Amino acid sequence: MKIQHQTGQAAYSSGGFIGKYQKLVSETVIPYQYAVLNDKAEGAEKSHVVRNFINAGRAVRGEDTGDGFYGMVFQDSDAAKWIEAAAYSLRNFPDPVLEKQVDDLIDIIAAAQDEDGYLNTYFTIKDKEKRWTNILEAHELYCAGHMIEAACACCEALGKRKLLDVMLKNVSHIYKVFVEDKHGGFPGHPEIELALMKMYRLTGDRKCLELAEYFINTRGCDTDYYKRECEARKWQVWGNDPGNGDYQQSAVPLRKASDAVGHAVRAVYLYTGMADLAAETGDSELYDACVRLWNSITKRQMYVTGGIGSTVHGEAFSTDFDLPPDTAYAETCASIGLMFFASRMLENEVKGEYADVMEQAFFNTVLAGMQLDGKRFFYVNPLEVVPGISGKVQTQKHDLTQRPGWYACACCPPNAARLISSFGKYAYGESADTAYCHLFAAGSVSFENGIQLSCETEYPYGFTVKYKVSGNGNVAVRIPAWSKQFTLTVNGSPVNAEPANGYVYIPVAGSSEIVLTLDGTPRFVYASPKIPRLTGFAAVCRGPLVYCFEGVDNGGDVLSLRLDTSGEITVSDEPETLGGTVKLGVPALRTAQTDELYTSQRPAQTACTAYAVPYCTWGNRGENQMRVWIPTAK
Amino acid sequence: MKIQHQTGQAAYSSGGFIGKYQKLVSETVIPYQYAVLNDKAEGAEKSHVVRNFINAGRAVRGEDTGDGFYGMVFQDSDAAKWIEAAAYSLRNFPDPVLEKQVDDLIDIIAAAQDEDGYLNTYFTIKDKEKRWTNILEAHELYCAGHMIEAACACCEALGKRKLLDVMLKNVSHIYKVFVEDKHGGFPGHPEIELALMKMYRLTGDRKCLELAEYFINTRGCDTDYYKRECEARKWQVWGNDPGNGDYQQSAVPLRKASDAVGHAVRAVYLYTGMADLAAETGDSELYDACVRLWNSITKRQMYVTGGIGSTVHGEAFSTDFDLPPDTAYAETCASIGLMFFASRMLENEVKGEYADVMEQAFFNTVLAGMQLDGKRFFYVNPLEVVPGISGKVQTQKHDLTQRPGWYACACCPPNAARLISSFGKYAYGESADTAYCHLFAAGSVSFENGIQLSCETEYPYGFTVKYKVSGNGNVAVRIPAWSKQFTLTVNGSPVNAEPANGYVYIPVAGSSEIVLTLDGTPRFVYASPKIPRLTGFAAVCRGPLVYCFEGVDNGGDVLSLRLDTSGEITVSDEPETLGGTVKLGVPALRTAQTDELYTSQRPAQTACTAYAVPYCTWGNRGENQMRVWIPTAK
Repeated sequence: MKIQHQTGQAAYSSGGFIGKYQKLVSETVIPYQYAVLNDKAEGAEKSHVVRNFINAGRAVRGEDTGDGFYGMVFQDSDAAKWIEAAAYSLRNFPDPVLEKQVDDLIDIIAAAQDEDGYLNTYFTIKDKEKRWTNILEAHELYCAGHMIEAACACCEALGKRKLLDVMLKNVSHIYKVFVEDKHGGFPGHPEIELALMKMYRLTGDRKCLELAEYFINTRGCDTDYYKRECEARKWQVWGNDPGNGDYQQSAVPLRKASDAVGHAVRAVYLYTGMADLAAETGDSELYDACVRLWNSITKRQMYVTGGIGSTVHGEAFSTDFDLPPDTAYAETCASIGLMFFASRMLENEVKGEYADVMEQAFFNTVLAGMQLDGKRFFYVNPLEVVPGISGKVQTQKHDLTQRPGWYACACCPPNAARLISSFGKYAYGESADTAYCHLFAAGSVSFENGIQLSCETEYPYGFTVKYKVSGNGNVAVRIPAWSKQFTLTVNGSPVNAEPANGYVYIPVAGSSEIVLTLDGTPRFVYASPKIPRLTGFAAVCRGPLVYCFEGVDNGGDVLSLRLDTSGEITVSDEPETLGGTVKLGVPALRTAQTDELYTSQRPAQTACTAYAVPYCTWGNRGENQMRVWIPTAK
Repeated sequence: MKIQHQTGQAAYSSGGFIGKYQKLVSETVIPYQYAVLNDKAEGAEKSHVVRNFINAGRAVRGEDTGDGFYGMVFQDSDAAKWIEAAAYSLRNFPDPVLEKQVDDLIDIIAAAQDEDGYLNTYFTIKDKEKRWTNILEAHELYCAGHMIEAACACCEALGKRKLLDVMLKNVSHIYKVFVEDKHGGFPGHPEIELALMKMYRLTGDRKCLELAEYFINTRGCDTDYYKRECEARKWQVWGNDPGNGDYQQSAVPLRKASDAVGHAVRAVYLYTGMADLAAETGDSELYDACVRLWNSITKRQMYVTGGIGSTVHGEAFSTDFDLPPDTAYAETCASIGLMFFASRMLENEVKGEYADVMEQAFFNTVLAGMQLDGKRFFYVNPLEVVPGISGKVQTQKHDLTQRPGWYACACCPPNAARLISSFGKYAYGESADTAYCHLFAAGSVSFENGIQLSCETEYPYGFTVKYKVSGNGNVAVRIPAWSKQFTLTVNGSPVNAEPANGYVYIPVAGSSEIVLTLDGTPRFVYASPKIPRLTGFAAVCRGPLVYCFEGVDNGGDVLSLRLDTSGEITVSDEPETLGGTVKLGVPALRTAQTDELYTSQRPAQTACTAYAVPYCTWGNRGENQMRVWIPTAK
């Protein structure tokens, strides 16, 4: 069954756990990022993003371009992601100063658009002649995609069309280049596909749909395209190997693809666009390919934290069951992209597993990406760090023990900001007569089908979710797969509902109260013995939260702990810890330290309690050991 | 107490387990390598080693150099290692055809020496002007070192001086360049230091000693030398970073060094030369540095197999306790070098731990380097392989599941060949009145102090070692640390001897029979909880042999096994398996496979017996899973 994409974000506001993060984004992340874009953030590297647009505007008007272009070839996308985050955030927290900043930046961007609709500061400032000559590396279509998403957000959330008109003109230009003039290539870094689908749904502009279709249908068909382009162009950005079809997901036509490969962020952005297109056109062959790719990711290549792309080499998928916790890449943006993909799969088919993974990625890897104060970010999300090794040895240089500040390549922080600010888009969906509750978050939402709903919950720390509903039709509430049991009452009466594909469907008329209680019993989680790195280990979870063991809670030494999985896990509220959290106490054995590197003396083991905190909060209390997976003693 | 280096290899011959390997080297490895050197080995890559010497001889005589130089900059060393292996092997297995091949090759090499004593085909053929301008990368001193070792072997084992005279002249030239003419610099790839010490001991030539001292004492003092060299030379071989002092062990003066760093083979070759020099000169400051480096390697950075250099990045030491089994580098040559270092530490001080490590490296990593048929070799010795991941994903590309044939960079096979052929040099040592038995091997040896000894044993599969001794003085027999108990009889009477520093000292007069029985009970081995990758795991050993679990013995699936370390390990003779071996049966649990990647359902476990074979024999029965370290269930 096909359901509509929840464009009704405009009518969504949240409180509770998610609301706190949204407030943090509004109060800390967005203002800081604005300062960065304008080179006014203390201690941050020069960004030059806004100057690039100003200087490109001068180029368009034939004026001197001042201090020219500076930064990465995809520098423009930082502005786009910031606008998108700000637009969604303004719906939650109106702020005339911020709104003016957005409007002013859009004016600057609009002025940087060439007469023919082209918009990219790198090429406009540096070399107009090189436009569209390096689709493999130069991120022109990637930057356009992000700006299209920003334009959609301004329209949806703020009702402002200026950027939308700019980007419709830009799409017209791109359509001419690729579809009418038969340029021949497809995006080196996919992203525009999903953006075009978003704009198509918002505006009905057929060129958006056709261009997305064109990019998805041609990708991987002409496998020599990048090689020919590379030979013809005589210039390069990164020196990408044009023959590495796996890296850029172009080794096989997408409809034939069965394994998720290559750069993980690019992959999930692309698969999101595919799923969007399949949902929109009812293309079942394309959806079947999406299902294969989904299974490849979530059943064979995903960390328990919802992290994907396990290897630093190419920031990429590795191979089935190769999921090392300590050398993990698991980029924050890749898990954000996985949420996109999951949300679009839900539009093709309402299945709990899609929402389960969306939730798993969000509450673990995505949230772990951000410091609790909103000021520092992880791009890489290992499931184990050991100071002295992590971040130090060559194989784990990328696995930092502490979140660094703003990077020159600032992809993850604004990506997290736009996602968190638009959480309602992922939490809810709708069809003509049904309101879907995919994720649990305090707040209220008005569906276009007339149903209104408000939600009270302490989730993910509390497991009762209370919905007040008005309107007629159905409310479909997801029962997460991790909840072994649940209870449901409707207007105070217990209801025995069997979930269908992970959802219970509750007919509603007038005013109703639905109370769902999920199973918040902490649980041990075991990995398939096909994952070499996790044999003999267990993790601990509660609700959607994966927990981790940090040195600070365990006498400084996590490595010598082994879990007794035959015991009971205890739960304790810790309002003073990590901004308010729930700690778990796990029966464990501690192995005695030895002077020897190896010994045939069976090491002494002492019973103890090991303490765990949510993985999304790790690394907030100084450098220390951290492990999600712990060896089991029994 | 200082003991003499066992130069009496000439009088040593072995049988039993070691003899079988020596025979394999004599019958298979040496002839094959000779064919390779002469480009007559079917299927092997072009080597051109002998042609290089022939062509260099033409250059010396001012003739046309024919097909010039081909191969790596250190190609000459292949010839040197082959001559060394052949010379030692000829003592064990006289063979006039092989002896003539050695003589002829030495004639060709001698003809390639320049009048001033210089000998290196790369520079002689390609560019004489570039001699000594790239000490960092060009391996001139490394090649000279190997040829010096070959010269010593020919003299010691065959009583032939021709190559020795060539190399004494060569050393004179190098001495002039570095000591007299103050060239500056020290070997990019250490090796010549230990070779010079060998030649000094054999010939008494003071220049050898002084040159070794010079290289060891100046190393790491002028930390900018390589940078200046790099700037001055304007050409490069590999593009090594001249500022990477750790990689080339030149960041600190060697006497101050406390951590083993950088390229592992270079490191242990260098430390061997240091220990040689310390033993020879009684330089206790230098010996103290050696002890620190020894401890850094063996107490914090060594695999249970005696493998060292855990990372592929620079084929190098990583950092303390970073010992991943699956991404291991653990080069065969590095363990050979560790044996060199251990043997020289024994000359400074007779301590069981030096011989223990020498044995650990030999019976595990060194022997694992060679296929049982002597035809294929591992350079890299992982402690775990999983087909589909190992040798395939970027992080484990180097960890092959099967031994490949001859490489273009052919360092390990001839290195193993020369070591195995000269096993007696490592097994025995002597002082004026004592014969030291460091390692156990069937065979006989005549010490220069007049003691003669023959040894019968099935070691490492049998644990009774019977010595027939004639002569007066002491026999010092090592009691390995792994042997929790032992019995000793002398001439049939039980002797209660307490080991001193790992050795029992037995006075002998006339004819004596000493029978030592070690503890062959298989044992579980546990790693320090400081090694993150080995927490919760155990290995299984018997005597000096580390065992491993291969798919072929365990229903194709090793990953789902967990060991019950509270149970008893059983022993079974398997004369038909792997050329005759002893298999161990270990009580274990097998975890059921699941369809899910992660599950909170505690997986079913079934009691079973897991079977293990010696690690040194792994990978001889086709591609399959292999693990040394297995999770423990109890």
